[in-house]
Amino acid sequence: MTEQTVEPDTSAHGYTPEKEAYLKRLRRVEGQVRGIARMVENDTYCIDVLTQISAVTKALQAVGLGLLEDHLGHCVVDAARRSPEEGAAKVEEASAAIARLVRS
Amino acid sequence: MTEQTVEPDTSAHGYTPEKEAYLKRLRRVEGQVRGIARMVENDTYCIDVLTQISAVTKALQAVGLGLLEDHLGHCVVDAARRSPEEGAAKVEEASAAIARLVRS
Amino acid sequence: MTEQTVEPDTSAHGYTPEKEAYLKRLRRVEGQVRGIARMVENDTYCIDVLTQISAVTKALQAVGLGLLEDHLGHCVVDAARRSPEEGAAKVEEASAAIARLVRS
Amino acid sequence: MTEQTVEPDTSAHGYTPEKEAYLKRLRRVEGQVRGIARMVENDTYCIDVLTQISAVTKALQAVGLGLLEDHLGHCVVDAARRSPEEGAAKVEEASAAIARLVRS
Repeated sequence: MTEQTVEPDTSAHGYTPEKEAYLKRLRRVEGQVRGIARMVENDTYCIDVLTQISAVTKALQAVGLGLLEDHLGHCVVDAARRSPEEGAAKVEEASAAIARLVRS
Repeated sequence: MTEQTVEPDTSAHGYTPEKEAYLKRLRRVEGQVRGIARMVENDTYCIDVLTQISAVTKALQAVGLGLLEDHLGHCVVDAARRSPEEGAAKVEEASAAIARLVRS
Repeated sequence: MTEQTVEPDTSAHGYTPEKEAYLKRLRRVEGQVRGIARMVENDTYCIDVLTQISAVTKALQAVGLGLLEDHLGHCVVDAARRSPEEGAAKVEEASAAIARLVRS
Repeated sequence: MTEQTVEPDTSAHGYTPEKEAYLKRLRRVEGQVRGIARMVENDTYCIDVLTQISAVTKALQAVGLGLLEDHLGHCVVDAARRSPEEGAAKVEEASAAIARLVRS
C-alpha cells in the first residue's frame, strides 16, 4: 500500500478554519466570568454562583476539547504523514496536554 | 451538653468577608480568558492555547472551592445550629453543587 | 431562638445506615475493574477499554459523592450543633476532601 | 517529500507491548477498590475513605491516559499514514474518548 505524497499546510493550525467560532465562544466565556463577578458584587446566594462557575468551567473545557480535536486532526495527522518519528513527537506533546485537561 | 443560642447573620453570605478577594480573582480569570482569545487571534500554537485553558479552568475551580468552603462554614453551619432539618436541607443543596463541580 | 439539646451519635458515621448499599456498589466497581483487566487480557480495542475506564471512574466518584453527602449531613451537622468551632473544623476537613475529589 | 511505505501492524494495539504492565496496574487498582470496601466494612472515618477514593480515581485515570497515548501513537498514527481519511476517522473516535475521560 503506497501513501500519496501530502504537502501539509504547516502555516495554519487545526483551529484556523474555525477561528471566528472559537473567538465568539471565548468572548461568551469572558462575559460569563464577568457575570459571575457581578453575582458576587450583588451578594448573590453562594449556590447560584457555584452553579454558574460549574457551567463556565464546562464551557471552557468544551473549547479545549474542540481545539484538541482540531489539533489531532491537523497537526498530529500531518506530522504522522511526514514521518513516524514526527508523529510520535506530536502524540507525546498532545498526550501531555490531554493529561492537563483531564486533571484540570 | 447545652448549645449556646446563636443568632446567625443570615443577611451576609459565607463569601461576604472575602468579597474583594474573590472579585480580584474573578477579574484575573476574566483577563486570562481574554488572553486566550488573543492567543487564538494571533494564531498561537494549539498546545500553548490548551495549556492556558487548563490553567484558567483550575483557577476558576479554585474560586469555586473557596466559595464552597465559605458556604459550608457559614450558611450550612448556621442552618445546622438552627435545626437539624435546616441543616439537612442545606447539606442536600450543597451536595448537589459539589457534584456539579466534580463533574465539570 | 433557642436550639434543642441534641446528643449526636458519634459512634456511627454518616454512611453507616447505607453501609450495605455502599459495599454492594464497591463490589460492583471491583468487578468492573477486573473486567477492564480482562478486556486488556483479550486484546480488546483501546477505545472500548477507555470507555469502560471512564464509566468506572464515574461510578467510583458517585460513591465518593454519596459518602461526602452522608458525612456532611451527619458528622459536619452534628459537630456544628455541638459548637461553631467544631463545625468549622469539620468544614475545613471536608473542604479538603472535596478539593481532592474535584481534582481527581 | 515522499513518505516511506509503512505496513502498520494492525493485529496488535498500542498497549500490546505494555500489556503486562497495564494488567499489573489494573490488579493494583482492583485491590485498592477492595481495600476501600474493607474500610467501609470496618467503619473507617468517612474522610479517610474519601481520600482513598480520590487516590484510586487518579490511578484509574492514569491507566486511561496511558492507554490513550499508546492508542494515539499506534492506531491513530498508523491510520493517518494509510490515508488522511482514515486518520480523520481515528481522530474523531479518539476525541470522543478524550471527552469522556475529561468529563469523568
